[in-house]
This record gives sequence, C-alpha cells and structure tokens, in this order.
Amino acid sequence: MGDIISVKATTEYNVYSGKNILQSIGGLARESFRTAFKLGVISDGNVAPLYADSVCQTLRTAGFTVYLIVVPSGEEAKSLKIYGDVLNKLVEYGFTRADAIIGLGGGVVGDLTGFVAATFLRGIAYANVPTTLLSIVDSSLGGKTGINLPGGKNLCGAFKQPAFVLSDYALLKTLPPAEVKSGNGEVVKYALLKGGDFYKNLLAGGNADAFLTDCIKYKADIVSEDEFETKGKRIFLNLGHTVAHALEKLSNFTIPHGNAVATGLIYAARISEHYGILSNADANAVEKYILSQGYEKNYGYSFKTLAQNALSDKKTSQDSISLVLLHGIGKPVVYKIKTAEFLALPL
Amino acid sequence: MGDIISVKATTEYNVYSGKNILQSIGGLARESFRTAFKLGVISDGNVAPLYADSVCQTLRTAGFTVYLIVVPSGEEAKSLKIYGDVLNKLVEYGFTRADAIIGLGGGVVGDLTGFVAATFLRGIAYANVPTTLLSIVDSSLGGKTGINLPGGKNLCGAFKQPAFVLSDYALLKTLPPAEVKSGNGEVVKYALLKGGDFYKNLLAGGNADAFLTDCIKYKADIVSEDEFETKGKRIFLNLGHTVAHALEKLSNFTIPHGNAVATGLIYAARISEHYGILSNADANAVEKYILSQGYEKNYGYSFKTLAQNALSDKKTSQDSISLVLLHGIGKPVVYKIKTAEFLALPL
Repeated sequence: MGDIISVKATTEYNVYSGKNILQSIGGLARESFRTAFKLGVISDGNVAPLYADSVCQTLRTAGFTVYLIVVPSGEEAKSLKIYGDVLNKLVEYGFTRADAIIGLGGGVVGDLTGFVAATFLRGIAYANVPTTLLSIVDSSLGGKTGINLPGGKNLCGAFKQPAFVLSDYALLKTLPPAEVKSGNGEVVKYALLKGGDFYKNLLAGGNADAFLTDCIKYKADIVSEDEFETKGKRIFLNLGHTVAHALEKLSNFTIPHGNAVATGLIYAARISEHYGILSNADANAVEKYILSQGYEKNYGYSFKTLAQNALSDKKTSQDSISLVLLHGIGKPVVYKIKTAEFLALPL
Repeated sequence: MGDIISVKATTEYNVYSGKNILQSIGGLARESFRTAFKLGVISDGNVAPLYADSVCQTLRTAGFTVYLIVVPSGEEAKSLKIYGDVLNKLVEYGFTRADAIIGLGGGVVGDLTGFVAATFLRGIAYANVPTTLLSIVDSSLGGKTGINLPGGKNLCGAFKQPAFVLSDYALLKTLPPAEVKSGNGEVVKYALLKGGDFYKNLLAGGNADAFLTDCIKYKADIVSEDEFETKGKRIFLNLGHTVAHALEKLSNFTIPHGNAVATGLIYAARISEHYGILSNADANAVEKYILSQGYEKNYGYSFKTLAQNALSDKKTSQDSISLVLLHGIGKPVVYKIKTAEFLALPL
C-alpha cells in the first residue's frame, strides 16, 4: 500500500502514502485506535460530499460507531466558535478518552481536528487524512495543531502528534487547479531544502506530484529531530515564509499560501546570494524555475514594503530578525540580521 | 522561606509553601521565567482587589512589564468565552512565546490560567499562586488544566505543569469560612491516603491548617510517579470522589466540592469495610471524625440514588466501575466492581 514513512516523535507513527489507499483506513484505525468504540470523522463542506460516505462506511465495517462532523470550509473553521461546536458534539455523542477522531480534509480541518484531539478530555487520539497537496506535504504531519484568533492565525494551539497519517494521492484528482498550484509552492521549498536529485529532477521538468513522498520524508526527518522547534532544525521549514507571510497579509490573504511561498523562495535565494552563500547561477536557476511555473516575482510590492510588514509581525522589540537562507542548494542555514540591515537589502 | 516541595514531572518544579512568602514571587519569577519581558497576572473579581496590586508591584520591581487580567469569579470563568477573552488580551498586549503568565486565585483561576498557558502560541510558561485551601492542596500542582463545556466540567483541557507554585498560607486568612470547610474535606482525604502520623494527628484534633504541607507533599509524590494518570497511582487522589461528584451534580453544585468529598470519604470507608479490607473500628473512626467536623452523612440521598447518578456519569457502556478504596488507613487500592453489585451495596 504505497510508502510507509516513519515519524519518530514523542510518539512514533507512520505516514502511509500512495495512490488509491483510502480504503485501508479501516485496518489502520483498528490497529491504531485499539481502545476506541467511537470515531468522529471531521470534514468540511467541500470534502465531505466527496469522500466522507466512503470513509465512514469503511470505518463502520471495521467495527466502529462512526459520527460525521461537518464544519464550514475555509479558514473560518479554525475559530474558537467552531472548535467549541466540535467539542460539544463529541460530548453529545458520548465520546470518552478511549475514543478517537479523524480529520478528513485540508490543513484547516487537520489543524482543527488536532487541536480538538489535544484538548478534548485533556487529549484523545486522532489521525489525519489530508485531501490537499498543501496538507499532504506539510500540515498533516508534525503535530502542530491550532486555531486562529481575531488577532492572527494559529495563535492558539498545541503540539499533538497524530496516531497515523493516510495520504492518498488519488484524492488530489478532485483538487481545484489553484490549490494544486499553491501546494506545489511548498514542493519547490522542499526541493531547495533537500537539494540533490530531488532538486535536479524537479528543475528538469518533473511533475511536482512525483515528489510528494520526498517532501513527506524530508518533513518526517525534521520533525523526528526537532519535534518542538527547540533545536533549530524545524525552523528550516520556514524557508521563504518570512516574505510569504508578509505577502499573504498585505493581500488580505487573497494570495494563496503556496504561491506566496514560491515568491518568498525567490527572495530567500536572492538574499542568500547577497550574503555570498548561494551562487548567482543557483539564485538565477531558482528564480527562473519558479517564474516558469507561473508564480509571481513580487506581486508589485517593493522588498522594503514586504520587509517592513514582516518586521511588524514580530511582537517583541527585538532588533534583529532570523531568516532561513541557503548555503548552497540543499543546505539551509539560519541567519540573524539586524532589522535596519534587513530593511535596506538591495533587492 | 517555608518548605520547598519538588514535583518531578516532565518538567521538574517546586512548590514553595509557608506563611507570608508572597513577596518572594519577584525573585521566583525572575529565576523561572528567564526569557520573559512581559508577565500576565490572571486573577478574579474576588482575589484581585486583595492581592493583585501587591503581586503586580513586586513583579514590576523585579523588572517585568506586568499586565493584570481580571476574570469573573466563580465557575463561569472556566468557559470557552472567558478563555478566548484571556487569549485575545495576551495577543493585544503583544505577548510572545518568551513571556509567561501567573494565576492568582483559586482552582478556577489556576485551571483557566494553565489551559491558556498550554495553548497560547502552542504553549508558554506559567505559575500558580493559589489563594484557597482547595487549590493549595489540590489543583495548583499536578498540571491538570482546563475549562468546562455546557455538557460538563473539565471536558476540555491539557496537561501542563507550572514553572512553580507559590502557596502562601497567610492568604487563607481572607478566605470565607465556607471555603475553609470545603478545603478541609480534601485535607481529610489526604490523611486517609497517607495514614500514619498525619492521620493520627488530624483525628486527635489537630487543626487542618497544620497539615497543608503534608497534603502538598503527598500530591507531589503521586504526580511525580504518575503525571498523566496512566500508571494507576494518580487515580488514588479520587478517593471519595465518585460519590462526591454524584452529590455535587444532584445538588446542582450547591454542595461545595470539599464537603461532598468528606461525605464521599465516609462511603469509601464503609464500602471498604463491606469488602473486608478496612476494619469496622477504622470505618467508625473515619465517619465519627468527619461528622464531628460538621460535614453531612448523605444529604438525604440514598446510596442507590448516589450510585445510579455516579454510573450515569460514565459515558462508556462499561459493565463495571472502578472505585478507590482503603486496604487499611493509608493504603489506597483500586477495586473494579460490577455495576449491578455497586448499585446493590447494602449502605
């Protein structure tokens, strides 16, 4: 059933990835949720009509009593309001600590499901079944869960690793092209982080789909080494994200995350070149490839505008900013740069 | 500065206990929150007017920027609504992962503060300054944090150990007599769990105040051995609580928690006697002492009513109930009893 990628976090678990493996969820749930009588499948208004019936039926056949909880689609579901609604549903359905929940959807559903699992009765087990490219390569594994507050995204959450992740690439066939493009922005990020054949083959025109397992493996290794982002490695996953977050906010979140990351990666390459740690040839190749995939160079914002916005996001009165740069392709490093210097970068 | 009791949980920390030690909070915060610029002091409408000014001033003198957040007094503060309000305040005040919060109040404030700390930005540090007898001997240490849902108490929460607990017994002088009485119900529980001189001296007429440190030590040892209630020891702290929770619910929470526990302890002793593991003399002594302290025997409820209510609380379809009993004073054990047998106990 495809690849099995192990994440060695506080609790060790597997990411099962491949095509047409969704039906194996019954056996995986049986094996992983040994104490559970009840399972809650949490999905959203877009994904539930496509896959919830099939998933719920498979889980029922595996012997569980299954409850489907459908939340609104989009970022709105990552609110305190919807979080409370889901918790109250679990109470109403009589869920105990022995039971478990499964997030069936993109990053929003996964983040919400994980946070509910982290906190319902002080913690129950959960699994992720990501249905978008972005969540397959990023949010479905690693245990960062959470919701948004009026003041910003992901301000409330917990680290809670899933019991397993089931990534069926066949589900991507129903993904809108815009979401595929956004997800591919993160795939490019992993290629720059990992380097080697992954990078070469991607730039040689390989279809991003072919690299999903490489992305999962890279993230699994990082999480295994630095689960709580305290040892310095997990921060590498933020390559391109300082500028990306600024772009998302400046556009009032109309620029999709992965597209913003793609633009951020061009800046990461150019800043790395500025500091003499990435060759001009490599920086050129990165920019050329990203633009060739239809991503934008700067969306009309000057670097100074992006930098100012990125700095305003930092809530401390620090006089420097940490950036993930590339000491050559495949060699991420963290650079601490004075804010004045950052703002004045000649880009 | 009084006693220092160590809790060896995932993160090791100390409970500082004694009289008139509140002013040491500046130094303790400085030592414990090394990365913090900002501190949030979370208190309620009853406690804040008494102690918040002094605590905040001491913390400011220690070099922190201090924000006082006052929540409503009583169980109401353990709601998703107030939880969100506190989170939003921290965002508004620009708190980062490096900063910390302090709960100044009873169990409600401590549970809420701990849950905010567990989840704000996926976790920041916190400390507890308990101001009630109940929270000094129970909820302020051990890391069980949480809020209530409409469907029941503490249904949403997390395990999150404080960085330190500062228990100043002098604060109890402002505690209403009814709360002192309630707190003492838990003190009796610890005496039955610990046995030995603690039990003998209490029954010999010792003032419960004199035993607070014994209670903290007992709980600290239990938490050190079984932080997540997975190894079977922490459940001992539920001695008397099965009946107590039934009483609280039947009375619509008009019977204070510790009073209900005191009644529950009489039942625990009698059930232990029924199974031949506690002598009639010991069970008599327990009942006599508890009644002598002004607690009630059954509040007019039959045991069957209490038992039925206790069972209805269990959300699984289990056919048995686990009870903490006494295999002699100071020797708690867990008994699994068939529900039919439990309902028919001749009490």
